[in-house]
Order: sequence, then structure tokens, then C-alpha cells
Amino acid sequence: MLLMPLLAVAFAAQSPQPARSSPLVTPSTIVEGAPATAWRTVPADRLLLIELADGGRVAIELAEAFAPLHIANIRRLARAGWYDGGAVYRVQDNYVVQWGDGTEKKPLPPGVSTKLPAEYDRESQALALRPFGYRDGYVADVGYADGWPVARANDRAWLPHCYGMVGVGRDLSPDTGTGAELYAVIGQAPRQLDRNITVVGRVIDGMEALTARPRGTKALGFYERPDQWAGIVSVRIAADLPVNERRGYQVFRTDTPEFAAWIRSRANRKDDFYVLPANGLDICNAMPPTRAAPER
Amino acid sequence: MLLMPLLAVAFAAQSPQPARSSPLVTPSTIVEGAPATAWRTVPADRLLLIELADGGRVAIELAEAFAPLHIANIRRLARAGWYDGGAVYRVQDNYVVQWGDGTEKKPLPPGVSTKLPAEYDRESQALALRPFGYRDGYVADVGYADGWPVARANDRAWLPHCYGMVGVGRDLSPDTGTGAELYAVIGQAPRQLDRNITVVGRVIDGMEALTARPRGTKALGFYERPDQWAGIVSVRIAADLPVNERRGYQVFRTDTPEFAAWIRSRANRKDDFYVLPANGLDICNAMPPTRAAPER
Repeated sequence: MLLMPLLAVAFAAQSPQPARSSPLVTPSTIVEGAPATAWRTVPADRLLLIELADGGRVAIELAEAFAPLHIANIRRLARAGWYDGGAVYRVQDNYVVQWGDGTEKKPLPPGVSTKLPAEYDRESQALALRPFGYRDGYVADVGYADGWPVARANDRAWLPHCYGMVGVGRDLSPDTGTGAELYAVIGQAPRQLDRNITVVGRVIDGMEALTARPRGTKALGFYERPDQWAGIVSVRIAADLPVNERRGYQVFRTDTPEFAAWIRSRANRKDDFYVLPANGLDICNAMPPTRAAPER
Repeated sequence: MLLMPLLAVAFAAQSPQPARSSPLVTPSTIVEGAPATAWRTVPADRLLLIELADGGRVAIELAEAFAPLHIANIRRLARAGWYDGGAVYRVQDNYVVQWGDGTEKKPLPPGVSTKLPAEYDRESQALALRPFGYRDGYVADVGYADGWPVARANDRAWLPHCYGMVGVGRDLSPDTGTGAELYAVIGQAPRQLDRNITVVGRVIDGMEALTARPRGTKALGFYERPDQWAGIVSVRIAADLPVNERRGYQVFRTDTPEFAAWIRSRANRKDDFYVLPANGLDICNAMPPTRAAPER
């Protein structure tokens, strides 16, 4: 009976992460209080916008510095309208959502390369990697570079397979990925895919349009029948759209004092709810916050 | 054009995790080939069965050794039929799905304690912790004990917040959780909740009935309106059901050579698809496999 009055006034707090009820510094207050200069705007030519037949909208930032050849292919596919009429044809719980041409029969348009070299990692020396500060379970060295979470080993650097990251489906041979079939991570980071697949970006808006879908019941989460697919109306590079049809996004910069404070705060949650700070953090639990670009 | 013939014969392989096409040892072949003795049957009094109004069915194994007082409360709530007519009222993407009494008005039945001590961790000395063998990002020591993944520090041990783990919603004060409001993790392991919330078990079947739901659009993923809730028909302890209505489950044992081989194989994926083994593994990517109990 004691619980009821408490719940009546603080329903949102009856949860693993309560509403803020104090002026304590938390990850949220740091982001909300950060100046405009703590944010970067995603360039329109690196912003991939997906419209689904059921009204779902997904925005993906493309990681130009990490997979330029595959991203060039994706731009060509989008500009040719190749993805339009395709589908989300695979949803495997705690793993990936995958989309593209579920029929396997649609020819690729001219100018799209079908024999790209793998872009699993790149040399790290030209990347200014800012250390993360907390231990990673997989590699000795993680941090942020060029606005992205990065893992590094032996002078090679790559984008880790965190929740929301987008990769290129491929056949068994590493050079068979074109960017025509893409997937997004929807579960515990499958880091075993790191350096085995080309990662091209990250979903920065609309994850729920991918995650809140029935799981496919065939092996690997493929849907049984095409009528279970979620249709794709269009996939566009924002720069190719009329200015008034573009959506704009910002991502929290990773080279600011505000970001460093946000990381420390996430690793050491201590507020009205948390009684014991973790003093640890997984880089996949520290993906830079995103938001719609403010109206001008 | 090169890609098409390959896809036509190997569609499933056009993905981050291909179908097996060789006799190589993989995590899947190890599980599929394991003898019956590599599995343990979940006792009926530790099996919580949820039936949702939309036909969804969820099975949760209760971790008796880690939260006996909360689990006793959950049994009393289930036996009183208290959860029946409740709802899934919160789905926060990449975080948790939560259910119980969304109205906040339903009195708890007699015999259910409203003032339980927190069961965030337990002393570890009586637990035979088998080392995991791979580094954890949060604590120095992780492994398996009593069939469960376990984290340990300073003679205390606890269940980490991995995908599918089930915890007890609470108010700000640690002694306000009763088990009436429960949640399951549906994203990148929120390990910052470890030792801040009582964990009572794990979803061992039916995760998709929780994860494939629209995300709530209010703060913290709560649904805006009760008509968006997913109704709960019943929540029962399997032991309370007639034998012919019980569902039975098995979990891969964690103290066998087969389990050790499965861990090594997951940490070092090397088959037709993987070109570079990770030589690492997160314990939350090594949750023991589960299956329906074989027919007798």
C-alpha cells in the first residue's frame, strides 16, 4: 500500500531511469544545456533519407571517411532510384534489420560497381583519435574520430558494430558487397562483425521504424513471404532533394568539453535514482546524441 | 551483374551471418550437436509464463539464487492473478519494455510485501563462478554461476543487465520495488543499471512479443494513451498450471565442455563468412542458448 501514493505522483520514476526531479548534473542536462557550438550539422550529401510505405522514416548519416567507395555506390543507387520499390525483408531479433531488393532480381543501374574492395578498416594514423577513457571488451583502444566512435588496433581503425550502425550485406566473398543490401544493428553490439563487414554509417533518426517490426520466422530472421515485407517508397540523398523537402539533423560533437562531460556523467551515473555509479561505460552505450537541426 | 547469380543461389548468405554451407565447427553446430546432458530443464516453479491479448507469449526463467524475496513476491502476485488485465505500457527503444499495472491504481493482494530490501547483489563466496575467459568492459571478473551470467567485484556477485534480462521497476528509494512492475532489456546492455536495480530473471522465449512493438512517444518510452497499451491476459507460474498446459523449456548448461567450446567458438568466429576472428566476446553476447523442452 505504501507504493501507491509514491506511484501516483511519480509514475515516470517507477522505472529504470526516472524523470529528473533535481538540478543534479546528468547526461541529459549536459546535452540539453550545451551551446549550439557543441553540435555539428550533418552535411546534406552524407544524409540518407528512407521513406517506408507504412509512413516510417529513417535518417542515416554516412561515414564518408571510413567507406568512401561503398558510400559512392550508395549515392549512385539512391540517385538512380534503385532502392525505390524495395523492402525491409529481414528482421532478426537482437541482431539486424536488413533491406534492399528482396526479390534478388533487380539489376543494378549503370555506374554502380559490383566489385568493390572491402572497406572493413582504414589506416588510423591520419585520424585524430580522442581516447574514450573506459575499457573496451574487444580491443585495447577505442575512442572518437571525425565525430564517430572508433576502434583501433595495430595502426588500423574501424567503426564498431554498435546499436544503430549500418553495414553492407555481402555474400561469402568479401568483395561481393555493393551497398544495394544494407542492414542496421538492433541488438547487443555484434562486435564479432567488426572488420568482417563494411560499415557505412549510423541511423540517427527513426530507429523505431526498423526495430518495432515483427521478427522474421525463417532462418536468420528473413520473412517467410514477400507480403510480410515492409515496402520502401524512396531512398534519397538529402542533397538531391529540393531544399524545402530536406530534413536536417545535428549530431553532438565528440571533440568538446561538453562531450567529455557527457561521457564522464554516463560512466558515473549518480543522481536521485542511481545509488552506485558503474565507473565504466561501453562505447556502444556512448553513441553521440542526435537531434533535428534547429529551424533557422 | 556478377552479384546476381551468387545471390540467386545463396540469398541467406547475403547477410551478416550466412547460412552454414560447410562442416566447419560453429557456435550453431556445437549447440545442435550437444548431447541431452548439455541442457538443463527449467523447474516449473521458476518459469513465469505471460500471455498477451494479441497472442504474444513470453517465458521468463526466474533466478532464484539472486533475488529470492522479489521472486517470492512475483509468485504471490501471479498466484493471486494480480497481473491479469495489466498491460505493457512502456517501450523505450534500445532500453527497456515494461509491464504491470499502467493505471497505478490496482491494490496489491494480501501477502505481497511492499517493503522488500533491495536484492541488487549477493555475496559471491558460495557461488562457484566459472571464469568467462574474455575481458569485460565494466568489471574485472565475469563468468557463469548456477547457470547464469554473473559479474563479480569485492566478494559481491550480481546478474548483469544483458539483452533479455528482467528487472524490477522501482521508485527512487531502493526498497520500493515489489515485482509488480517488471521490465526486460531490449537494447545494448545498460550495465549502468547493474547493482542499482533488482534483477529477477531472463526472457528465454518470446522476446519478439516484447521487442516488436511500437515505441512509446512520451518521455522514457511510456505510451501516450492507455489504448496503446498491450493487454496482459495472464501471468502464471508454470507449476501452478495443469501439467498439460505448461510449456517446458531447457537452457544450455554453463558447466559443460560443450558450453566452453561454444564460448570459444563465438569469440573466434572463423568460417566461410568470417575472415577475421574477434578473439573477444562480451558476456552479454554469450547468453546461454534456450529451447523448448523435447517431447517425452
